[in-house]
Amino acid sequence: RYVKPTLYGGRGMTLEEELNRSNEYYLSKDIAVIHKKPTPIQIVKVDYPKRSAATIKEAYFRKASTTDYNGVYKGRYIDFDAKETKNKTSFPLSNFHEHQVEHMRKCVDNGGICFAIIKFVVLDEVYLFKASDLFYFWDKQNNGGKKSIKKDIIEELGYKINYSLNPTIPYLDAVDELI
Amino acid sequence: RYVKPTLYGGRGMTLEEELNRSNEYYLSKDIAVIHKKPTPIQIVKVDYPKRSAATIKEAYFRKASTTDYNGVYKGRYIDFDAKETKNKTSFPLSNFHEHQVEHMRKCVDNGGICFAIIKFVVLDEVYLFKASDLFYFWDKQNNGGKKSIKKDIIEELGYKINYSLNPTIPYLDAVDELI
Ligand SMILES: [Mg+2]
Ligand SMILES: [Mg+2]
Repeated sequence: RYVKPTLYGGRGMTLEEELNRSNEYYLSKDIAVIHKKPTPIQIVKVDYPKRSAATIKEAYFRKASTTDYNGVYKGRYIDFDAKETKNKTSFPLSNFHEHQVEHMRKCVDNGGICFAIIKFVVLDEVYLFKASDLFYFWDKQNNGGKKSIKKDIIEELGYKINYSLNPTIPYLDAVDELI
Repeated sequence: RYVKPTLYGGRGMTLEEELNRSNEYYLSKDIAVIHKKPTPIQIVKVDYPKRSAATIKEAYFRKASTTDYNGVYKGRYIDFDAKETKNKTSFPLSNFHEHQVEHMRKCVDNGGICFAIIKFVVLDEVYLFKASDLFYFWDKQNNGGKKSIKKDIIEELGYKINYSLNPTIPYLDAVDELI
């Protein structure tokens, strides 16, 4: 059942592309409906030319106040963020913003299933890491704890997701172990 | 328990503003985490000036492929669209796009709670209308059925939501009757 990661991974796709593809597969097979949220944009100026589409002439990227992905799987609310790191031995907590962690906390409080999908890009390894575990390390860093989570710990507490042909990243197999 | 709609409604807020406010209330009271999705934008040109924020110089509005709102309530996945009509006696089905209805169908298939929040703006009346009821009328229009749903039917099958002070539109009370 083990699939060699190099067979399918490492083809230059970003984690986001790999997850979007996986979600398309899950959608097409009626397994789950999970989408990436659009990037939030602050629109300042719009032109409305005659006979053609409205054109945004000035706009700015806003910081996302929530996570990247959400949707429904087996009736349950799924919410997660995708994070890549070039580090090989640890995952820097600075990849998360305070408001993202707060959003995840609120989702968990309301019965949602929340996690991070973490990719060590150099190693081409992907893990699902539960939000509750993330909260532990997040809170600890403000009390003299480390600013990163050692990869050993992610291996220990998280769920390794092996690349497959379809879906590219079968992360719902790991979610099945959470619910 | 009945609150006269004119007390709180009809102050010139759009349905979307009223719902955003209601969702803020639900979030602040830890009752639910439901957000409006950002408007999807197709970005064509971005400037990266030195020492200041990236500026989007050319972009276009894309058609939303899903609904406006989603989130979690009591562990369940919630997904809905907000629709206003100036009509007084019926709701035109043209307010929905095919892909929105398809998205709702997929969410329902996967155990999500889906509905439309319909506001008759002239009458200042708001209803929650279940997705399953919407599907019935949506499908019928392609088989010689009407292109709109009579308000009588919305009153009959839907759930009237009376305006309140906080949340402005207490639509989760109606959701409680669905679950
Ligand atoms: Mg991300
Ligand atoms: Mg809408």
